[in-house]
Amino acid sequence: MYYLGIDLGGTNIAAGVVDEEMKLVYKTSIPTESKGGAESVIKRMAEAANLAIEGAGITADDVKSIGIGSPGAIDPVNGVVIYANNLGFKDLPMAAMLGEYFPGKPIYVENDANVAAWAEAKCGAAAGTNDSVTITLGTGVGGGLVINGQLYSGFNHAGAEMGHIVINEGGRPCTCGRNGCWEAYASVSGLIKTTQEHMEKNPDSLMWKISSALDKVNGLTSFDAMRKGDEEAQKVVNEYLHSVATGLVDILNVLQPEVLCIGGGISKEGDYLLQPVKKFAEAEMYARFNATKTDIRIAKLGNDAGIIGAALLGL
Amino acid sequence: MYYLGIDLGGTNIAAGVVDEEMKLVYKTSIPTESKGGAESVIKRMAEAANLAIEGAGITADDVKSIGIGSPGAIDPVNGVVIYANNLGFKDLPMAAMLGEYFPGKPIYVENDANVAAWAEAKCGAAAGTNDSVTITLGTGVGGGLVINGQLYSGFNHAGAEMGHIVINEGGRPCTCGRNGCWEAYASVSGLIKTTQEHMEKNPDSLMWKISSALDKVNGLTSFDAMRKGDEEAQKVVNEYLHSVATGLVDILNVLQPEVLCIGGGISKEGDYLLQPVKKFAEAEMYARFNATKTDIRIAKLGNDAGIIGAALLGL
Repeated sequence: MYYLGIDLGGTNIAAGVVDEEMKLVYKTSIPTESKGGAESVIKRMAEAANLAIEGAGITADDVKSIGIGSPGAIDPVNGVVIYANNLGFKDLPMAAMLGEYFPGKPIYVENDANVAAWAEAKCGAAAGTNDSVTITLGTGVGGGLVINGQLYSGFNHAGAEMGHIVINEGGRPCTCGRNGCWEAYASVSGLIKTTQEHMEKNPDSLMWKISSALDKVNGLTSFDAMRKGDEEAQKVVNEYLHSVATGLVDILNVLQPEVLCIGGGISKEGDYLLQPVKKFAEAEMYARFNATKTDIRIAKLGNDAGIIGAALLGL
Repeated sequence: MYYLGIDLGGTNIAAGVVDEEMKLVYKTSIPTESKGGAESVIKRMAEAANLAIEGAGITADDVKSIGIGSPGAIDPVNGVVIYANNLGFKDLPMAAMLGEYFPGKPIYVENDANVAAWAEAKCGAAAGTNDSVTITLGTGVGGGLVINGQLYSGFNHAGAEMGHIVINEGGRPCTCGRNGCWEAYASVSGLIKTTQEHMEKNPDSLMWKISSALDKVNGLTSFDAMRKGDEEAQKVVNEYLHSVATGLVDILNVLQPEVLCIGGGISKEGDYLLQPVKKFAEAEMYARFNATKTDIRIAKLGNDAGIIGAALLGL
């Protein structure tokens, strides 16, 4: 048997087929065309699912269940998207609606950050553990919690919003309305802002050669300039890594997962990110004298985590 | 049948008997005399337990199990105190040692903050819920997590250290070695420090009448002066409540418990603490637009939470 996973995004719908060994055997992607509205998006999800089934060389009968990773607040018990701002969905019975295209097939819906964490826990960097946390350093800072072998997001499924813990009371404004959230510093947007602040203070920095203008700065600017020996860029990276590690140690002190995975665009920096963060955590975490400590790792499944995690909701 | 609970502290050992309806029917307390060393402390725990059994008018045969709430890092699976700094315990097989005084009786050991959270979850302010968090605003800031109906403290039982999430990067030094921890602001010690800082800046404040000297300041100074109309004291309380609420909303955003209980000495302020914190949370928490939201409550069991929670480990 196979499991089908759908990763619903604002721009694209990715769909893929995962086998019993949790390997992604085929994946494909089509535009979401979200302007068409909810019914049209659901129809396109069915189309993407059928393309994936066809591409994998199987039939719908070979598919045991379909899982969906959707943005927004999800009620996984009833398969309902309570609220998804960027898609304009509100109280949408997604499982039931997609079910009309696949009669009798079990359909599961979860938040997209949660399914990515689920994938890392089942067959990614945290495979073999019962308790893991995956955080994603992307445009924002997202994440998911696996506790006692199950996804956990609180009694109302609205939790695991790790990006919105405040690390600087009264600090940078965050999109969520608070000030000083971890996301405002540890996301790509946060890194870009820190880079720009330092460039303005230092017109001689190599960062100006890499990004000709402030609005051309991206998440690589400081890391690339640092690798070329620029001192100001090193300060940017140090400041950034300090903020990343601060929020990360907060999570360790509360949850003590066996493995904490770091995913998202910035995780491609690999050891430039991982080693300093591990060193910081070893110095600061409350359980640093404990015999058993959280292992901090780079996430393994990259962009496929969404499809795989969605598919594995049916496991 | 009855359940016996022991709340082991650095100064006193409290022991009590809880009935099937989770009511504390009798409690007593004797000095710990921790200087006598581990074997002596265990012996005194057995004495306290027997005094409680006698006081309750029952016999050891009526006791189904014995639970212990101990300071420090605990391995609840093996009933071992891994490390308890203030008692000088390291890798102490507490359950086995106490078991020699009560042959055949099941004995459970848990961290003291965890058992208090367990008590609130079973028969206190969070009774009837599956997911709750209890935080304690005392000398430090402690707490415990109940997730899916079970105490949770991570894969190595070292978690739930909510006091050690950083709310101000590079802020006040904390006893844990980090800077800017929630505990450094939201504990009684933190409140005293904030009070002292404001008194130094304002020699005319009523707080000087209430506490004649800086080293006489306590956790009530600012709240009492505020109630008498002192403006500077109001600023202290506002600053304090802002920090309390900041860490509290961090916890809500990550865990979304059904109920969050606030215990510890400062919780005696009741609505002076609860109402502003609730208002802040309603404005800042990520799930503020959610249909179902965490209920924030004052903890119910006070100093008895330790005995009751320890007893109920056997439930």
